[in-house]
This record gives sequence, structure tokens and C-alpha cells, in this order.
Amino acid sequence: MVCISSSEPVFNFAAGPGMMPRDVLRQAREELLEWQRSGMSVMEMPFSGEVFQAIQQQAQQDLRELLGVPADYRILFLQGGASAQFALLPMNLLPAGATTDYADTGHWSRKAIAEASRYVRINVAASGAARDYRQIPTQADWQLTPGAGYCHITSNETADGLAYHWLPETGEVPLVADMTSDFLSRPLAVERFGVIYAGAQKNIGPAGLTIVIIRDDLLRPARPETPSAFSYRVQAESNGRFNTPLTYAVYIAGLVFQWLKRQGGLSVMAECNRRKSAKLYEAIDGSDFYLCRSCALDRSRMNVCFHLADDALTGEFLRQASEQGLLHLKGHPAVGGVRASLYNAMPEAGVDALIAFLHAFAARHA
Amino acid sequence: MVCISSSEPVFNFAAGPGMMPRDVLRQAREELLEWQRSGMSVMEMPFSGEVFQAIQQQAQQDLRELLGVPADYRILFLQGGASAQFALLPMNLLPAGATTDYADTGHWSRKAIAEASRYVRINVAASGAARDYRQIPTQADWQLTPGAGYCHITSNETADGLAYHWLPETGEVPLVADMTSDFLSRPLAVERFGVIYAGAQKNIGPAGLTIVIIRDDLLRPARPETPSAFSYRVQAESNGRFNTPLTYAVYIAGLVFQWLKRQGGLSVMAECNRRKSAKLYEAIDGSDFYLCRSCALDRSRMNVCFHLADDALTGEFLRQASEQGLLHLKGHPAVGGVRASLYNAMPEAGVDALIAFLHAFAARHA
Repeated sequence: MVCISSSEPVFNFAAGPGMMPRDVLRQAREELLEWQRSGMSVMEMPFSGEVFQAIQQQAQQDLRELLGVPADYRILFLQGGASAQFALLPMNLLPAGATTDYADTGHWSRKAIAEASRYVRINVAASGAARDYRQIPTQADWQLTPGAGYCHITSNETADGLAYHWLPETGEVPLVADMTSDFLSRPLAVERFGVIYAGAQKNIGPAGLTIVIIRDDLLRPARPETPSAFSYRVQAESNGRFNTPLTYAVYIAGLVFQWLKRQGGLSVMAECNRRKSAKLYEAIDGSDFYLCRSCALDRSRMNVCFHLADDALTGEFLRQASEQGLLHLKGHPAVGGVRASLYNAMPEAGVDALIAFLHAFAARHA
Repeated sequence: MVCISSSEPVFNFAAGPGMMPRDVLRQAREELLEWQRSGMSVMEMPFSGEVFQAIQQQAQQDLRELLGVPADYRILFLQGGASAQFALLPMNLLPAGATTDYADTGHWSRKAIAEASRYVRINVAASGAARDYRQIPTQADWQLTPGAGYCHITSNETADGLAYHWLPETGEVPLVADMTSDFLSRPLAVERFGVIYAGAQKNIGPAGLTIVIIRDDLLRPARPETPSAFSYRVQAESNGRFNTPLTYAVYIAGLVFQWLKRQGGLSVMAECNRRKSAKLYEAIDGSDFYLCRSCALDRSRMNVCFHLADDALTGEFLRQASEQGLLHLKGHPAVGGVRASLYNAMPEAGVDALIAFLHAFAARHA
């Protein structure tokens, strides 16, 4: 285990759960024993009581405002993470035997496809395989299925370091996106989507909380074998009170939403995220010591994935980085190399420290 | 909303989420910004990293020790709460069309039966209906189904204020229990059960975390329509790392387990819970002003449910109690009246304060 002297600045580049805004953690600490003279910690609040209901409503309202969620979309605070949604999405949206389009752009879209294929017929409408997952297939490469139940994309591939910086045109077919790793990192045209879902542990809050934003007309009765607690419609009709929600995680997410509003909203975050990732990619591209294999146009601004030209040095690179308080830079096991996750909470100083380390390490080992 | 002056002692009698040990909340506050010189809040820890893995393993080990869980049982830290398990239990244990025994002892067993009946044939092996849910049916009243897939009980009925103080004999049929509201309130003969499950929000920790303790031979492949993230077997085989677990809730639960060990373990808690509930029942039974309708032998030590003889005074009773810092005493909506939940974290001083209030209110309104 890394032991950090608290006098050094520490930057946590983990892909998720990942770094959270200091201000949010400080407020959570401040309110941990008692929330606003309620006599209770948020962890102790009955979920159907007026105090927690006010916290939850405020969080929903702030999220609606941040993203500009139209009135005909519901925001659900659910449980189970995105991996559970991989199955619950087809169970909630479509009957058995229905056909869907999925784009295969990397590790997490393949996971989504594998799980969903147990419930629906899948047409891989676009695949990054032919180009070794170095880029997102361009619209011309897509083979959409007329009348498909939905078209699913993974807006940011956490393991591969790719992201959509445009949205595929799917006509009448609802566009559905797993946005776990770039939700709230930039403004969003919610009205272009049928369903957006995201696990919380990147840019929202504690792991487990799962946000589903769904257009009202898609709130159909789920398949009969769907547990009631996981029916979007049941949860929407009970306003998330069908069973006990993740009360503490909803509260922390609410603090994050308020923090985002104080930062100036998602346009400001997007510009900040663009700048942070651009300077890191520039440092990588500017050195023969490091290689980023993904196509410049489709690079993720959340997860910067790269390799050392001499892969044998990767272990040493990670060890030295960790000693300097640059934590959890190891690439996803399926991909290897180095991954720096630059979620909203990562300050620019963290990126600067990493860039300085890249230069210093290269100079020492060149 | 109740606004509490922080100089008054406040006691939270909510049925769940409910009161948590102060020492646990204080330690959580102490460690909120950084856990033990790791450079991270627990909320920010990558779940597959060695730091969080150590936290999770310690929590599992402490729970195993507290309950005396035999080596051939697995402890799973899952998500979704007990309401989700009502469906996931039959999906994981039995094929469609299988027959199970369920005991109907109150509000929550009826919820479990309603959801499970979508997946299996249910024989109500024992019902409290004939005696208006005032007692747990005695063993002689049970009609067990030979060869049933399992026999399900709700060990403590949170809404009705009833509990098993004995265990039904089910022979070869695995006994399965929803222990959400009395888990860790007393020692347990785990070896008498096939499966024990419990939502965390009473005696364990933050809502959402769901503990399943299952005997190895029952870890069968789940039904094909079960989302992988909710397969007991998949989760057991990956040691709960199939998807991101509820990292922060697992950490808090671990603090609660350590607190329980410091108190002297579950025998000490059981004696304390017996004493707290006995004195409250005594106060109720000793006054014509209050009525507890449940059979003395089967009364819950977690949720003391009673009525005012003059039900028209209930609103005033709850209002005055709340003003005096005795919070969330309202009975479950399905039952009405008053409910005082006395989980492990409720200090005896809280019960004493409630008893003093019972006397004073009766004196004022007699």
C-alpha cells in the first residue's frame, strides 16, 4: 500500500471510483454527524421523510438544470451500476426477440453487447475492430437496422481512451447511451437521446448510484421476469420510492451537482476538460518516449490512455509516479500501458504534475 | 421540517434508514477526506486496488467472526436492498415452476410473497392472518411442502412489530430468511439456514448495501434471464468484483462490525436489545393509555409497535414527541399508530427518554 505524507499534494488518476471535488468532501465531512440541524446524519434519515425527500428533489432539480433535461424526460436515481443496466436496459425497453443496434467501440461496449445479447438480437451497427479500436467509426461506416428497438453507444470508452465528439444520426430509432465515464463532463443535447444511463463513480458520486434519464414514451412495462425494483416504470411511478434508495449517495451526488453549478456549469467544465486533456496529449505526442495510439479526433478527454515506447519500463514508471503522489495510473488490464483519468474533480495542477513527471521520467530513462 | 437545537439530545426512532452508532459516524468524519494516509477518501478508491480490497476483506472477516459464519458459507456484499432480493432469491435458487414454502407473518413477508410469486409456485406454509398478525404461527400450525425448493421466513416484521424467537424446523428443505431488520441484533445459528439476506439500512450501514450469506451448495447457476450482476454465483466466483461494489457503504459497514466487536459482540447486543425493548413494552402494558396488540412471546425487540387507546391523539403524540427530540415515531402507513425502532445504535437513554415522554403525555391527556 502506498503511504502518502499528507504534506505532499496527491493526485488520484483512478478510472473509477475516482477523485472527487475537495469542496464536496469537505462539506460532507462538515455535515456527517448532523445535516442542517435535522438531528440526523444523512445516513440516518428515513428515506420517505420530508428531510431526505427535499434533498432528493433538490438533487434532481439541479441535475435537470445542469443538463437541460427536457420536461418529457424522467430522471431516475437507481442502483446496481452500469453493468446491471447492460441487462436491465433490454429487459425494460423491449420484448424478447427484438432487434437492436449496438456500436462496438471498445472494451465497455463489448461488455454491454455481451450482456444484452442474452436478451435481444444484436446487430453490430458499427465496429472499431477493423481499425484495432483506434477510432470511433464515422457515420458513413454505420449499418443501421431499420426498425431496431434502439441504437446503443458507449459515449466514452474508459479502457481504450476513445470518445464520441459527435452523435450518430439514428432517425426514428431511439439513441441510447452508456455515459458512465463522461456524464457531466460537457453539455449534452438530451433531446437527441431516448435513454442515457450512467454509474456514479466517475463524475457523480459514490459507486452504486445509477442515473437513468429516460424519455416518457419509453417507460413501458418491463418484461415479466424483471424484478420490480429494477423496472424503470415502477420506479418512475413511485418517484424512486418503490424501495429504499441509496440515500447517502444521492446526497453526495447532490453536493456534486451544486459544486458543478458553482464552477459555472457544464460548458465551463467542458472547456476545462478540453484544456487538461489537450496539454497531456500534447506532452505525449511531443515525445518519442510515449505513444498514444488513438486517432486524434476521437480521443477521450476523461481517460488519456498511452504506452511507453519501451513497454518494459511501464512498471518502473508506475512505481515512481506513485511515489510522487501520482496514483493509480495503471492502464486497464485488458489494454495495458498507462491511463490517466481526468474527471471533473482532477485539478489542472494534477495534470501539470503528471506532465512534469512524464518529462522527468523520459529524461532519466532515455 | 423539524429543526433541532443541537444542545438537546436527539433520538431517531426511524425504522430505516435509522440511527447509527455515534462512534462510527465520528470515525467516518475523521477519515472522510483521507483514509489512513492513503491519499484518498474511501469514496475515491479504485475498488480493485489493494487499499479498498483490504477494507472489504476486513469487513467480511469481522462479519464472519461476529456471526460465526461456517466455512462452507459465502458472504456476499451486493446491491439493491431486500426488495430486489425478493425476486433475485427465486431467480438464483430455483427453476421456473418450482414450489416454495413461505410464512406470512406480516407486511414484509407479504411483500416477499407477492414478488416471489412471479417466479415460483408458493405454498403459504404458515399464516398469521387468522390471528390478525398478532403472533407468529407456532410450529404445530405449519404445513410444510415435502421437497419444497426452500422455506422463507421474515425473521422480524418491521411494520407489525413481530419477530421469531425460535426457528422453524424444515428438515431437508433449506431455511431462507429476510433478516433486514434484526440482522446483527442477536447471535445466530447460521448453520440452520440455507440463505440469509439483509438490507443494510437498519443495523449494518448505508441503504443499498445488501448482504447475502449463502451455503456453498446453493450457489447454483441463476436462471438465464438473471442479470449477471445479480447472480449470486457470478458474484461469489468474482469475490464481488464482477462490477463496482458499494465501496463507501462496505467501508461504513466495516466500521459498524468493528464497533459491534468493541461492544462485546452479538450476545452483549442481544441482552442490551432485550433490556431496552422489555422496559418499553412494560411501560406500554402498564398503562391503559397505550395498547400493544402483539402476543408477548413474539414481540419484536427491534420495532416496538403500539397504539394510543384514543387513536385521535396519535397526531398530537407524534408532534409533541418530535418537539422533544424523539423523532420518527410514526407507525408504518399500512399499520398506523406508533412505532419505536430500537436498533443496536439506539442508546438506552433514548428508550428512557421515550418512556418518560409516554408517562408525561398520558398524564397530560388522561
